[in-house]
Parts: sequence; C-alpha cells; structure tokens
Amino acid sequence: MELSDTQFHILINFVMSFVGFYLCFNIIPKFKDVFMRADLFGADLSKRVQNKIPEAQGVICGAVFLIIMFLFIPVPFYKHLSDTVSDTFPYNEYIEYIAALLSICCMIFLGFADDVLDLKWRHKLLLPTMASLPLLMVYFANFNSTTIIVPKPFRSLFGFDLDLGILYYIYMGMLAVFCTNAINIYSGINGLESGQSLIIAISVVVFNFLELTGDQSEAHVFSIYFMLPYIAVCSALLYYNWYPSQVFVGDTFCYFSGMTFAVVAILGHFSKTMLLFFIPQVINFVYSTPQLFHLIPCPRHRLPRYDPGTDKIGMSFTKFKYKDLHILAKFFIQVCRKLSLLEVKENVGEDKEYMECNNLTFINLLLKFLGPLHEKTTVTILLAIQGYCSLVAFLIRYQVARLFYN
Amino acid sequence: MELSDTQFHILINFVMSFVGFYLCFNIIPKFKDVFMRADLFGADLSKRVQNKIPEAQGVICGAVFLIIMFLFIPVPFYKHLSDTVSDTFPYNEYIEYIAALLSICCMIFLGFADDVLDLKWRHKLLLPTMASLPLLMVYFANFNSTTIIVPKPFRSLFGFDLDLGILYYIYMGMLAVFCTNAINIYSGINGLESGQSLIIAISVVVFNFLELTGDQSEAHVFSIYFMLPYIAVCSALLYYNWYPSQVFVGDTFCYFSGMTFAVVAILGHFSKTMLLFFIPQVINFVYSTPQLFHLIPCPRHRLPRYDPGTDKIGMSFTKFKYKDLHILAKFFIQVCRKLSLLEVKENVGEDKEYMECNNLTFINLLLKFLGPLHEKTTVTILLAIQGYCSLVAFLIRYQVARLFYN
Repeated sequence: MELSDTQFHILINFVMSFVGFYLCFNIIPKFKDVFMRADLFGADLSKRVQNKIPEAQGVICGAVFLIIMFLFIPVPFYKHLSDTVSDTFPYNEYIEYIAALLSICCMIFLGFADDVLDLKWRHKLLLPTMASLPLLMVYFANFNSTTIIVPKPFRSLFGFDLDLGILYYIYMGMLAVFCTNAINIYSGINGLESGQSLIIAISVVVFNFLELTGDQSEAHVFSIYFMLPYIAVCSALLYYNWYPSQVFVGDTFCYFSGMTFAVVAILGHFSKTMLLFFIPQVINFVYSTPQLFHLIPCPRHRLPRYDPGTDKIGMSFTKFKYKDLHILAKFFIQVCRKLSLLEVKENVGEDKEYMECNNLTFINLLLKFLGPLHEKTTVTILLAIQGYCSLVAFLIRYQVARLFYN
Repeated sequence: MELSDTQFHILINFVMSFVGFYLCFNIIPKFKDVFMRADLFGADLSKRVQNKIPEAQGVICGAVFLIIMFLFIPVPFYKHLSDTVSDTFPYNEYIEYIAALLSICCMIFLGFADDVLDLKWRHKLLLPTMASLPLLMVYFANFNSTTIIVPKPFRSLFGFDLDLGILYYIYMGMLAVFCTNAINIYSGINGLESGQSLIIAISVVVFNFLELTGDQSEAHVFSIYFMLPYIAVCSALLYYNWYPSQVFVGDTFCYFSGMTFAVVAILGHFSKTMLLFFIPQVINFVYSTPQLFHLIPCPRHRLPRYDPGTDKIGMSFTKFKYKDLHILAKFFIQVCRKLSLLEVKENVGEDKEYMECNNLTFINLLLKFLGPLHEKTTVTILLAIQGYCSLVAFLIRYQVARLFYN
C-alpha cells in the first residue's frame, strides 16, 4: 500500500515528534540547575520533606515544540515550494500555520514572563486577547463563516441557521482566554496540569483521526500536525511532573497548552467539540467563579491541605464573615450547601463570628466526597474523570448531537 | 490635500506608536519593583555607588511593540476585510506581517529566557536560526529572488547577474543571527544598546521615506510600519537607560532589536543597506572575533575598567601567556600592534610570564585613543560615530553605489 501525501506528512510529523520527546526527556533534567540558579523553583507543599523543585519547565516544552514546528512547516508545502511558479503557493493554508505559531509563541512568552515576574490578572487577560487577534484575522480572511446551525429545539425561534457575526469572533477570542486560564486554575497537585493536557490532546487527536475521512479533513490534518508534537513534549514533561514531582510545569505550560488547544479548535472548526473535552475544566471554572470574582475571599493558593501525619491531602478552606458577603455569595453558599456541593463550618474563630467553606476547586470538591486521599490517588482519580469525560464528549458528539442536528 | 491610503495608514501607525511611547514611558518605572522582586537586577559597575538596577527591561518594550503591531495589522487590510469576496484578500502581504512578528516574538522570548536563565552560546545561535525559518519560507514563496546584480568590476568574471540560490538564504539566515548578536556584543556602558538601536532605526526610516516614491515602495512602507513603533518603545527605553542608567535593557532588548532590523531588511529587500547602518557593529564584531572564538581568553564581561578616583572609564585588559596562544592569535596581536589598534603590556605578573592586551571591543579601542573618558562622554562619542556612519552609509548607498552599479 502506498502512502498518500497527507499520510506521509503525518508520518514525518510523528517521527519529528518522537525526536522532540527524546529531546525534552533529556533536556529537562539537565536544565534543573539552570532554573535553580535563576531562582525559578518552588517548594512542594504537599510533601513531608519540602524539596526545592524547579518551576516553569513548560518553557522547555514550548521551545522544543516551536523548533519542531519550525522545522516541520516546510514539509506539507514542499511540493509547492519546488514549483517555479509561485502563484500556486497556498498562502491561505500557510498563513494558518504561521498565525497559529505566533499566537502560541506569544503565550509561551507571556507564560514565562508570568512565572518570572508574577503578573497581575489584567495582564493575564489582556495579552491572550491580543495574541489571538492575528488568528482571528486569519479566520476572517480564510473562512469568515460566522453562521451556526441552530439545534432542532430552537429552530422555531431562530430558524435553521443564525449568523452570529461579530459575536462569533468575541466567542473565539474568549475561547482563547478561557483555554489558557482554565488549565491554569485547575492545578495544584503533582501531575494534574500535564496529565489533563495530555488526555485532552490525545482526545483531540483521536477525534481528528475519526474525522479524517470527512469533508473537513484538511482542518483535522492541520490539528494533527500541532497535536502530535504537543503530545510528545507533554508526555516527557508528565514523566517528570508525575507524583512525586521532580519538576513543576509553571504558568508557561498552562498558557502554552491552552493556546495550542484554542488555536487548533478555532482553525480546525471544532470549538464546540473542544469545549466538550474541557468538561472538568469548565466545571472547575464555574465552581470557582465566586472566588475568581472575589465574592468569596480567594487566598493566593487554593491547593488542598496536606496532613504530614497521614501523608494525605484533604480540603482546604477559606475564612470570612458571612454577614459581610455579597448577596450573590450568600445565595451561592446556601444553594451549594443544599446540594451538598460545599463543606461549611460555622462559628469559627475566637469570637465565633467567622464562617469557613472549602476553596472552590474541583479538587476540593472531589476530596469532600472521597477525601482525605493520598496525593497520587487524587490525581489518578481526577485524570480518570478527565478520561471518562472525554468518552462522554465523544458520546455527545457522535450520538446525542444527532438528536439536535440532522 | 487629501491623504492617500498609505499616508493615512502611516499616520495611524504614527499615532499608535506615540501611544506606545507613552505606555512604555509610564510602565517602565512602575515595573521596577516587579523586576527587583524577580531577582532581575544588576549592579552598575562603572559607578562610585553601585546601585541595583533592574535588568531585562527590553521585555516591556517588546511586549508593548507586539501589542501595537497586533492592533495595527488590521489597518492596512481593512478594505480587504470589508470586502465580502475573500478571494481578493492579499495573503502574500498579510503573511509577511505575521511571519515577521513570529520571528520577532520568538526572539523576545529567547532574549528574556537568556536574561533569566543565562543560556549557552549554542542556544543563542540555534534559536535565531530556527526563528528565521518561517521568514525565509515567506521570502521563498513571495519573491524567491536570489539573483544579485554583480558590481561592475566583477562583471567580467561573473557576468551581469548571479543567482546565488541556496547561498542567498544562508546569507539571510546569517543576517538574522548577526543582527541579533551584533548589538548584544556592542554594549556595556549606559545608553549604548538603546542609543545605537535608535540611531539605526531612525536611519532606516529616513531611508524608507527616501525610497517611498521608488518602485519598491510597498516594501519600504512595510518597514516603516515596523520601525515607527520600534522607535517609540526604543526612545522611551533610552530615556531611562541614558547615563546614569535607571534601568538596563538586557539581552531581551538586543535580540528584539536585532531581529526587528533583520526582518525589515529581509522582507524589505535592503539587507545590504541595513548592513551599512551596522558599520560600528561590524567593526566591533570583526575586532572581537579573536575573543569570540576564544583564540584570546574572553572574560565574562569585557566592559571598560572604571576608576572611582577620577570617575572615568579606561580600557579593560585580558591576561594570558603569549606562548600558549594559537598561531592566528599571535598573528592578530602582531598586526594590530603594528597598526596601533591594540594596547599590549608585556612581562606582567609575578613571574613576568604573562601578557595583557585590551579586551577586543570597539569601546576599548576608542578609549585607547581618547581615554580615559567619562562614561557619558564615551557613549556620546560612540553614538556620534554611529550617526556619522549612517551618513557615510547614505553616501555609499546613493553616491558610491553608482560607480559599481548603473
């Protein structure tokens, strides 16, 4: 059987990704001292002995990823480059690669700057928005398809399709901001950031291969070209980030991952499916909102509380005076309490004036039901949930969607 | 008089650059503490009181530059975007902007990583080469003109024109590496990095405006779009970097500047003219080669020696045993000595076995003839030389070139 051009390119991409894995796997331990000298390390708070662990290792993954992509990009365009007539050069395809890499490179840079400088929230929202502008312009020039098919139940209201216009671009811009930050706030225990990203990436690749025979195959090939190198560098990182962590991934990795997912989802036209793979991150984000918007006090770190006696982690809490809370926060607490989604301790403190509730993360929510647990058990369960959610996502995408669309 | 589209776009670019200047001017002092906390500071060795000065401030300039460009890019394409027929979108022009920004963004990232992590030389050469690949591919797709006009004296040998083919791409790749590193090694006294870059940038803009009526006007407009925002952020930085420096620019700035110059030179087709603006950097590079290739020992810092008594700076020296030197180094020392281009001290050290010569930088060379000088005087003279060289460059470009080309 002969390979088609596309298959051959994917094969080359796979081989280059493998080399990338090998590089990352070797470079990460070698650069340990470099990061320690640069003051880029943190203590692992959930261990009996709190060793200094090098931080921001995502920067190595990001750099290797960029190098793989720079070297790979000529491959799918080789035929066109060897033509003497340059008019046939598929600029509209090539520009997708370059714009995608620009957005990703910007986010690696921003992430690293955040790791080093500890940026403020406004910078973390401003810069991903800016970085997605060139991408949206490419989308505009290449597709400008802002029309969505309305799900059956709503067709009596909106008709068969609906042109969202500028709203669609705002949605895509927000997708980039969401993806970059969603992974960043669903973190705090060994192996979770790199583990969840790896599962999402593998889900995306499986989805891309399933769609390879469809009418959008080009978009899915594009996604595969980005996802295979990503999986490679991410796996190498997970190896060292797994319990007990030898390295931390840093904001760099979360931003790099989030933007990579956003880029392939936007240019691959599967942003809804991508969001399905983000179910745990969406739950974590929604559950976190009262703390993110400071309706309920948000400590700098919300990671679970470690008990050195049992070597297990349990819920961590935030403390406040109930009467000082915003009405929305009170409402949230009462509803969540009714639904057993929140652990609340009343009459805390010397004058019994304080209330405590668990920090609003998906990790703490899990620990409310199953905890205290060993850290490794916790991350294993969370990643199993992530994998399970991917299965649910495929089910929704291929079965349930039929009920809503033809 | 009505403005043409291009004039209008340049005006918008100018206004946005002005806002960029204002932003940089305000942000740099505000971020001082952030950089200090992140351990990104250095001592100013050429001062009586060695204050801690925040380092790597080029990262602020780079970020502001990227934001201006992201917001500006839609402007020249606005008309095409409002067309409903997307076939008319000028991908080949748009891709130049995106590829240029990708290369620049990569270098800002690399520069910042270098400032934080102190990378090795091989990384400093590898990454700019990689980062210039997408740019060269755009050049290939858009122009692929690798033919040069042979200067008159050599036409009997090579004919009227010569197709350099792959050599031309190697030349352009090396230009990117050269520009990024040339500024970085011509540094060490207050205001020199930002001052030289500003003078080069202004020279480029003057050249672009002179060529605006020529047949390559599009390429020069492209260059102006990049140079005006660059001049804006660079001026703000120079204000704080001028003697006595409140901030240091860092490798970030040197790489950012170098790649920006390389990008406009390559895509604007004026790499030879750009090299003319780099005369002092070329001299500094050539003079430095024996130390860069470690034929003569190269200390980590080669900046001039400060004398707290007089508050002046003089030559700094490197020490070695003459007999241990490579034959090429011996040759270099003898020739330079004959030409009075090197200060040599013999029979140094307790056992009189050592030799000393000044560190091979253009700054030390200047100080050999005029020094010791006050630091501010030194940088003023060096920048005057830079400006003078730009005038010579224009003379060569517009007068002498006529002798060699029609």
